[in-house]
Amino acid sequence: MTSQSPEIPGPEIPGSQFSGRRVDFPGQRLGFGADQPLRLDSGAELAPFTIAYQTYGTLNAAKSNAILICHALTGDQFVAERHPITGKPGWWEIMVGAGKPIDTDRFFVICSNVIGSCLGSTGPSDINPGTGKPYGLGFPVITIGDMVRAQARLIDHLGIAQLFAVIGGSMGGMQVLQWAAAYPERVFAAMPIACAARHSAQNIAFHEVGRQAITADPEWRGGEYLAQGTSPARGLAVARMAAHITYLSEAALHRKFGRNLQDRARVAYGFDADFQVESYLRHQGSIFVDRFDANSYLYITRAMDYFDLAAEHDGQLARAFSNTRTRFCLVSFTSDWLFPTSESRNVVHALNACAANVSFVEIDSDKGHDAFLLEEPEFSAVMRGFLDGCAWHRGIR
Amino acid sequence: MTSQSPEIPGPEIPGSQFSGRRVDFPGQRLGFGADQPLRLDSGAELAPFTIAYQTYGTLNAAKSNAILICHALTGDQFVAERHPITGKPGWWEIMVGAGKPIDTDRFFVICSNVIGSCLGSTGPSDINPGTGKPYGLGFPVITIGDMVRAQARLIDHLGIAQLFAVIGGSMGGMQVLQWAAAYPERVFAAMPIACAARHSAQNIAFHEVGRQAITADPEWRGGEYLAQGTSPARGLAVARMAAHITYLSEAALHRKFGRNLQDRARVAYGFDADFQVESYLRHQGSIFVDRFDANSYLYITRAMDYFDLAAEHDGQLARAFSNTRTRFCLVSFTSDWLFPTSESRNVVHALNACAANVSFVEIDSDKGHDAFLLEEPEFSAVMRGFLDGCAWHRGIR
Repeated sequence: MTSQSPEIPGPEIPGSQFSGRRVDFPGQRLGFGADQPLRLDSGAELAPFTIAYQTYGTLNAAKSNAILICHALTGDQFVAERHPITGKPGWWEIMVGAGKPIDTDRFFVICSNVIGSCLGSTGPSDINPGTGKPYGLGFPVITIGDMVRAQARLIDHLGIAQLFAVIGGSMGGMQVLQWAAAYPERVFAAMPIACAARHSAQNIAFHEVGRQAITADPEWRGGEYLAQGTSPARGLAVARMAAHITYLSEAALHRKFGRNLQDRARVAYGFDADFQVESYLRHQGSIFVDRFDANSYLYITRAMDYFDLAAEHDGQLARAFSNTRTRFCLVSFTSDWLFPTSESRNVVHALNACAANVSFVEIDSDKGHDAFLLEEPEFSAVMRGFLDGCAWHRGIR
Repeated sequence: MTSQSPEIPGPEIPGSQFSGRRVDFPGQRLGFGADQPLRLDSGAELAPFTIAYQTYGTLNAAKSNAILICHALTGDQFVAERHPITGKPGWWEIMVGAGKPIDTDRFFVICSNVIGSCLGSTGPSDINPGTGKPYGLGFPVITIGDMVRAQARLIDHLGIAQLFAVIGGSMGGMQVLQWAAAYPERVFAAMPIACAARHSAQNIAFHEVGRQAITADPEWRGGEYLAQGTSPARGLAVARMAAHITYLSEAALHRKFGRNLQDRARVAYGFDADFQVESYLRHQGSIFVDRFDANSYLYITRAMDYFDLAAEHDGQLARAFSNTRTRFCLVSFTSDWLFPTSESRNVVHALNACAANVSFVEIDSDKGHDAFLLEEPEFSAVMRGFLDGCAWHRGIR
């Protein structure tokens, strides 16, 4: 899978530099200068700023076949190609590619790194032009709305009036809902997966634990760790471990690990990783710190916590979608306890209340929240079927 | 509620000294010398050691009315009286006292601090006689079986051949199951509440996150923080915050907090505690570090992780209870996702398989795991009814 784009890359931007090291990422950049600020929900403005993105497939002449994929909390734009740091396959290669449900032989797929992240789009690890040092906590707090507003600038730049589809899971699904609410005329079809129209108290609580773990690490240095040459790796690893549990179901953990011991016949009566599940979690924590910036984790979790689409519409979620002509397909997974089916149902009820074109599928899976990233044949079939149907309505061959 | 005991307190033991400060707890102590070691499941021996305990009510002449209450992970022996550090009411005053379901006008109630804890029973914050310094990680790893073996020494000392009942929730319920398996002739009735016969992969995972948070704190000093005059308070607070989420249900968090803001009308676009749930969690973390020792948290979570009653009986849980004459009543709560009803059902099935006298009640509650500590009228009625019935069978007026 190679990256293709009809566009000239934006200005050359140095790579993100989290974990105290500088990485020059491949891919495309779109830069906006000091005179083209991004207006943020907080009232602040971000300028200059850069959007890093990847594209796959070819935009047709009518510019009617573009699909925007929105990534999750720690995701990135490398949706269908090797991750430049980990060397692992793209995070959704199961779903995106030639002949795959999101078929790059047919659709032009765009995925951009969200504002606030650390894979090339402007975030707290980038240099604050006002100080010449990394932003750290000087970066403005951003929202899901801000992420989407930045994406819209990219879509403008690509000359696309209307996206054929906006698709995403978890925080990506929040962005899909935000797109449909903020730019209804620009979204022909929307697929919000394993998400919610607002972040729950329990989810805010888990995020707060992660943030506390990071900020409790003395190497975090009040957010100035890049300038000071330290790394809050242990705090960030703990944050990731706690979050990782929420991405899996109890059943998946039981099936994968149960109480199996790690490379030993008996418990060792100590604090080493006796159990496979401990070893697995420690591994998840340790590999995460090599690919993600601690401050970005703070900012993006905060954006998710703040998401509450109904609150922006007088507490009536249906008003977020008044007169929408977008075709919706919501997907949830039975064992997802982070974004349970009830959350998707709330969105479906709101869409029904404004007579929207909406379908809803709850997929039977024991894989928990992560199911949307994993091999789930029924989910793939739903994706393919929904896109086929919408393509027919949109006149895409 | 005053503490009464027919026994002379054991040797004077200095109070536990976690959080860098020495606290002299009230209450009773039973000390065992170097010649009376506690044999541990690991093969190690603990000597000397002390059991701190409280009693309520009066032991009858037949010594047939004693109820042992087993406390949970961070619980203590102050079940029905003011906590000596926090000044708060005893942790189960709802259930234990004159006229309460566990009626101290009728029963003689015993509650001891578990081995490994920090409220007076010997644990890692106590002085290792071999070094003259606090044990720290030099303390032997203990198990639920070891906790119960220590309790049995206390019951021997009190001259009680058979306990009328052993009752406990969460880790206390694990001890109840262990009591019934290890000393069937000494347990007339058993009430394991909101517990499991083995710790699940998900629960081990949450415990591992807590341990990682503690050991990641540089103030933990490889477990030597007491000797070095530091305190891993931030790591311990993060551990407590993560655990606390698991004690509540999503519904309880939603009902208590939802997305309500803390002392503000709008989100502040920052990392202060905008949401009440964040403020609440931070508070829970900060008050915990004043009353609990970080190393005790490591040891006791480890004991829970290791608990697997079937594994000690060739993988057949029913064999743990062969020929038991104990009367069992298991209780679970519908919204408890830490120890869900399925775990209690597994125990019930095992007890059925050996034709034990067992009843099982699932209480409808949205309060999550913590429900067993809270006002739940149906639960109180079950407790009262079960104890009344068993008392009639035991000939206690």
